[in-house]
Amino acid sequence: MKNNYDVIFALNKNEGKKFLADIEGKEPAFLCVIATTETAKIPGISAAGKNPEFTDYTPPADVELLLYGKCRCISGVPVTPEGIPTPALITMTALKMGDIPAFIVVGGAKIKPDSPIIDLGGRPGKDVRSGNSVEEPEEIFKKAELIGRNFAKISDYLIIGESVPGGTTTALAVMLATGINAEGKVSSSMQNNPRNLKTSIVNEAFKKTGVKFGDLKDDPLKAVSLFGDPMMPAFAGLVSGAAEKIKVLMAGGTQMGAILSILKTEKPETLNNIAIGTTRWIIEDENSDIKGIVNQFGEIPILAANLNFNGSLYQGLKAYEKGVVKEGVGAGGASIGAMLKSKGIINAQILLKEIEKNYKKLITGRL
Amino acid sequence: MKNNYDVIFALNKNEGKKFLADIEGKEPAFLCVIATTETAKIPGISAAGKNPEFTDYTPPADVELLLYGKCRCISGVPVTPEGIPTPALITMTALKMGDIPAFIVVGGAKIKPDSPIIDLGGRPGKDVRSGNSVEEPEEIFKKAELIGRNFAKISDYLIIGESVPGGTTTALAVMLATGINAEGKVSSSMQNNPRNLKTSIVNEAFKKTGVKFGDLKDDPLKAVSLFGDPMMPAFAGLVSGAAEKIKVLMAGGTQMGAILSILKTEKPETLNNIAIGTTRWIIEDENSDIKGIVNQFGEIPILAANLNFNGSLYQGLKAYEKGVVKEGVGAGGASIGAMLKSKGIINAQILLKEIEKNYKKLITGRL
Repeated sequence: MKNNYDVIFALNKNEGKKFLADIEGKEPAFLCVIATTETAKIPGISAAGKNPEFTDYTPPADVELLLYGKCRCISGVPVTPEGIPTPALITMTALKMGDIPAFIVVGGAKIKPDSPIIDLGGRPGKDVRSGNSVEEPEEIFKKAELIGRNFAKISDYLIIGESVPGGTTTALAVMLATGINAEGKVSSSMQNNPRNLKTSIVNEAFKKTGVKFGDLKDDPLKAVSLFGDPMMPAFAGLVSGAAEKIKVLMAGGTQMGAILSILKTEKPETLNNIAIGTTRWIIEDENSDIKGIVNQFGEIPILAANLNFNGSLYQGLKAYEKGVVKEGVGAGGASIGAMLKSKGIINAQILLKEIEKNYKKLITGRL
Repeated sequence: MKNNYDVIFALNKNEGKKFLADIEGKEPAFLCVIATTETAKIPGISAAGKNPEFTDYTPPADVELLLYGKCRCISGVPVTPEGIPTPALITMTALKMGDIPAFIVVGGAKIKPDSPIIDLGGRPGKDVRSGNSVEEPEEIFKKAELIGRNFAKISDYLIIGESVPGGTTTALAVMLATGINAEGKVSSSMQNNPRNLKTSIVNEAFKKTGVKFGDLKDDPLKAVSLFGDPMMPAFAGLVSGAAEKIKVLMAGGTQMGAILSILKTEKPETLNNIAIGTTRWIIEDENSDIKGIVNQFGEIPILAANLNFNGSLYQGLKAYEKGVVKEGVGAGGASIGAMLKSKGIINAQILLKEIEKNYKKLITGRL
């Protein structure tokens, strides 16, 4: 690695340095996987939308923002109930500054974005408490794998992000079902992580299906069909197809543990060709433990974009420093991608200035 | 250009040589645009299917063959009423030999392939005689343009093919409406080109809408909405977005004239960054005139894969030499792409041998 970057090596530092050296100056493609799950509508579970019903619009609005610089299916941008803007604002800025092409992959979503999409034929996810969450995850996985394999032929490496409100609860369920010690470790878009609520939801789903911790460790896609969301098989399939040949930066927070659970069984060799790319807000979060999750899968590096919004002019951005939102839509990974592609010309400070400009445009409606 | 290729310079030889020199040894991506139009079901108009009703299945089956080496939505492969196999067999072989990644773009289709697709939100096309053929072509064009622009960031160049039964009739109508002298010049998948039938269908559509030759020369997307098919705005949009930055090989026959009509108005500068890539069977066809069409758009090169199936062991392939099928699913362009990527290691003879192997596997069902 020739240059310095605003990237924190949060876990497996040597592997992380090697990963960055491999992608430095290279041309990535960014894929964003979106999905919806009815789980997001359980009161108190997700802040990815003004209110629970609104969460269906968050993934399509997020990716419209990435592609067009503004949302189409809603006015303004997705916000938490307190009005804190979507991390897609960070991702959009990073992709634009880095001139990184973005493609949208739909795992299964109730509302489709008003944009071109890569459709894998998946259906929206159901409430995890039904014990019947995702239809035909194997099909979604295989179709995504083909897409990943084809992108690997033309991209130096891939950055894959996701947007699925309610996704940490389904991730918790899938990790526990596949024997990953994730209790109390998953993150939240809220400042006060509703851990007890998540656990009781997962317990209800486990009770309904008779599944106990670790029962599905050899069949993670079965765990997805029972307790997951449609982002998971799509995301895991993309990694599986691409990481046969090229590096993949898995751009997300604690949900990445569910993806690793799938890969560990479906394509273990890909675990040598990946890194987790996230934000400082995730690795410093005291109410979740991404390192404790990723540690269970071997020596996978965690890289965190060292973004700092403390000095921001805007309360909506400063709130990120108080532990609201933290990550999503591949914000951390896209930031790392832009910094590495530009060989450090783009850094955390320059990113913040541009994020602020874009935020101002979006809140004043002056596009 | 350093090597020799089985490519015929059919028009604008100097530009053609320059184009080949530019793409020699480079890594393309192949995009196949599919669509359906009710026009294909007019008796006698298309041989792209066992019978008219079957034409809805031809585009999805064609692209399944490209991606999976076999069809999924039908058994066997698409054939003409006489049992002559789809040109997708050529494309599939060329892409596989050249290790060229393929992506499917749906302009608007009644039957979706059982595969990942890039969906532009378009609807299937209606009968051209309705004078109301394609819904919202501008939207399809813009979405395709975004996809083309993003692929241009990661591919050295693009090869774009199409599969739309009935497409030469809609192409004739769009070309005439936009002032291109195409009468008697469009090709056919049949040995006996039903020219009079095509002309009378177009006349009926023109009468219904009150449009005359050249009336829509400044509004080709309006011509598409009245008389086109959903492949057209998707294909033209992809070229428009990609050819801003990289070369595009437009892999098709006389239908490419309708795409050129759109580009000439919507993005004329892209006409300097493209070539038509087709087959010898198209340029030697006595019942159509691709050169006479392309000539009307300036110095755009026509390159033709010099495939020759006379020596084939199989009647189904030999029939191509009698003027059946001729082109489709980007067969000519994909062959050129495989030859150029391999710097001539793949040639027409090697391609034929491999096409025969794949044909044998498919007709005996031994996959």
